[in-house]
Amino acid sequence: MKFAGIVGSLRKGSYNGALMRAAIELAPAGTEIELLDWRAVPIYDDDVYQQGFPAVVAGLRAAIAAADGVVIATPEYNYSVPGPLKNLLDWISRPPNQPFANKPVMIMGASPGGFGSVRSQLHLRQVLHGLNARVLGRPEVIVAQAATKIDAAGRLNDERTRQFIAEELTAFAAFAGR
Amino acid sequence: MKFAGIVGSLRKGSYNGALMRAAIELAPAGTEIELLDWRAVPIYDDDVYQQGFPAVVAGLRAAIAAADGVVIATPEYNYSVPGPLKNLLDWISRPPNQPFANKPVMIMGASPGGFGSVRSQLHLRQVLHGLNARVLGRPEVIVAQAATKIDAAGRLNDERTRQFIAEELTAFAAFAGR
Amino acid sequence: MKFAGIVGSLRKGSYNGALMRAAIELAPAGTEIELLDWRAVPIYDDDVYQQGFPAVVAGLRAAIAAADGVVIATPEYNYSVPGPLKNLLDWISRPPNQPFANKPVMIMGASPGGFGSVRSQLHLRQVLHGLNARVLGRPEVIVAQAATKIDAAGRLNDERTRQFIAEELTAFAAFAGR
Amino acid sequence: MKFAGIVGSLRKGSYNGALMRAAIELAPAGTEIELLDWRAVPIYDDDVYQQGFPAVVAGLRAAIAAADGVVIATPEYNYSVPGPLKNLLDWISRPPNQPFANKPVMIMGASPGGFGSVRSQLHLRQVLHGLNARVLGRPEVIVAQAATKIDAAGRLNDERTRQFIAEELTAFAAFAGR
Repeated sequence: MKFAGIVGSLRKGSYNGALMRAAIELAPAGTEIELLDWRAVPIYDDDVYQQGFPAVVAGLRAAIAAADGVVIATPEYNYSVPGPLKNLLDWISRPPNQPFANKPVMIMGASPGGFGSVRSQLHLRQVLHGLNARVLGRPEVIVAQAATKIDAAGRLNDERTRQFIAEELTAFAAFAGR
Repeated sequence: MKFAGIVGSLRKGSYNGALMRAAIELAPAGTEIELLDWRAVPIYDDDVYQQGFPAVVAGLRAAIAAADGVVIATPEYNYSVPGPLKNLLDWISRPPNQPFANKPVMIMGASPGGFGSVRSQLHLRQVLHGLNARVLGRPEVIVAQAATKIDAAGRLNDERTRQFIAEELTAFAAFAGR
Repeated sequence: MKFAGIVGSLRKGSYNGALMRAAIELAPAGTEIELLDWRAVPIYDDDVYQQGFPAVVAGLRAAIAAADGVVIATPEYNYSVPGPLKNLLDWISRPPNQPFANKPVMIMGASPGGFGSVRSQLHLRQVLHGLNARVLGRPEVIVAQAATKIDAAGRLNDERTRQFIAEELTAFAAFAGR
Repeated sequence: MKFAGIVGSLRKGSYNGALMRAAIELAPAGTEIELLDWRAVPIYDDDVYQQGFPAVVAGLRAAIAAADGVVIATPEYNYSVPGPLKNLLDWISRPPNQPFANKPVMIMGASPGGFGSVRSQLHLRQVLHGLNARVLGRPEVIVAQAATKIDAAGRLNDERTRQFIAEELTAFAAFAGR
């Protein structure tokens, strides 16, 4: 199975980028995660959409439609989903088809503070419900105090967190295969 | 009092743009709403932010800091706040100062469907709580079936909705003045 | 398949009771819904729980554990799940086992106002995620202006709404069977 | 000023009871918190309500109506507000008058786990918005790993947490006095 990976932050040193790299390494046998590059996606403007999807968006929509599942690693901005990630999902969602419909999705998230993106993940679940995605319930990977778990080279080196991610990926592979 | 107005959609024919134009007309004596133009705001990237605010963002931050209150008219995208609007709020929120802190805010919203942006407004309230804004509770203006209330020229011509907006503005002027 | 039915209101003339009776009539071939009577459930008190489940709670827990799925019809109280329904779910959720884990659940709801319990259903989805239930995403049955769709004898006589419920039940039977 | 105190758990050894006792001790000069006893409140049933408020509910409604503000300490049950607390708020909210309307409210919460009731507090804020209460935004007191901060006698003995509560009370006294 091929999963598409989305990191909710564009920051080069992103904690959630580190989570995603760990997930790519830890993907169970028979699965792989291909990271999507969505940096060039513009701000959503319905008048632009009416002229047709920008090429970068069309490519991302096709990649998600083709994937067996989507793995999202998201930070929390202002108690909710980062605006850039929500903007991406809004572009992806537009007719004629909606690539997230019935798509298996797995969520994880990290933050520097004590709550580990929990509020962002709850809003993201509501958005994905709006998109009619099929979202894995457990286990949840919510990584607090991320700076203490990621080294200067951007590698997630906290073994317990790596184990949680491996477990979530194993559950997700079974979930996506159903 | 001078309020800054934010329309959560960039679409030229936006229903929420029509709500905002009505609000501008209906602003009580002694208040006015100045519409912010945020079309040029880029996707938030923390590495860009670390180099300094883009000029358009710096201008918007100054405008919000200077305003006596903020009036937001928002649609709902995928059961939540539009990504573009959240992206704007994320930019506005960054240190050294946070212009929304203790800022009086009034929310209204419209949608073509039956729920009138109610889910978006709830998420927006949580985000504004995250920003420590001071958000008016009542009345709530939640405009369903917006297409039936706005004419071809983009004027809100439903008298009951105009009355609701006038009442919310009156309550907001008192709230912001406290 | 046997589903357990939970009505979120204790009111005899409950709109959601009417929805549930319609669902019982409309259950697809091969399925049936058995209504749970939870009127006697006390307010949750952890000190009481530590002495053992009250008999009524033990019975409800067993019924849910045995069911192939759970059908919930809920009103909205104060922008959220009714306290009595949440209290019931809190009792059901306590160790040693958690009957809602991996349990298929279908939600519908009605309200007299214009939003048809939409806010309550969103909070209920978050609670059911907390319980690790497996909740049907679509279709959603959200019945606004319920008083206009239910006759004096408490029968849901709006054919469109009955059709929506039948469609949700058909989707749920397939979902629960997976 | 006199504030009414509500503990969201009925458990004798409740962590949130310990928070409330600390708040009672730490209340700033000129304020006091009187704890409400809501143990005897029955499950909400609209048919019962139509016959008149039970005496215990009538008393609680009067106490809240008379208070200069309400201090709530709540745990989290299943990612949301405890059912018993929501049930209490639902009773309080019923016509002819709504004692929480425009009432200043302060929220704090504790949980044994790592998230300190944060999800419960967010839902409670939405409910209080539904009640048109006036809820303090900052500071937020969210007490994780509560068992490590409360001694065997039920005293909150973590000085940092006591300081947070004192700061929230000071902010609340100013907020309620406005």
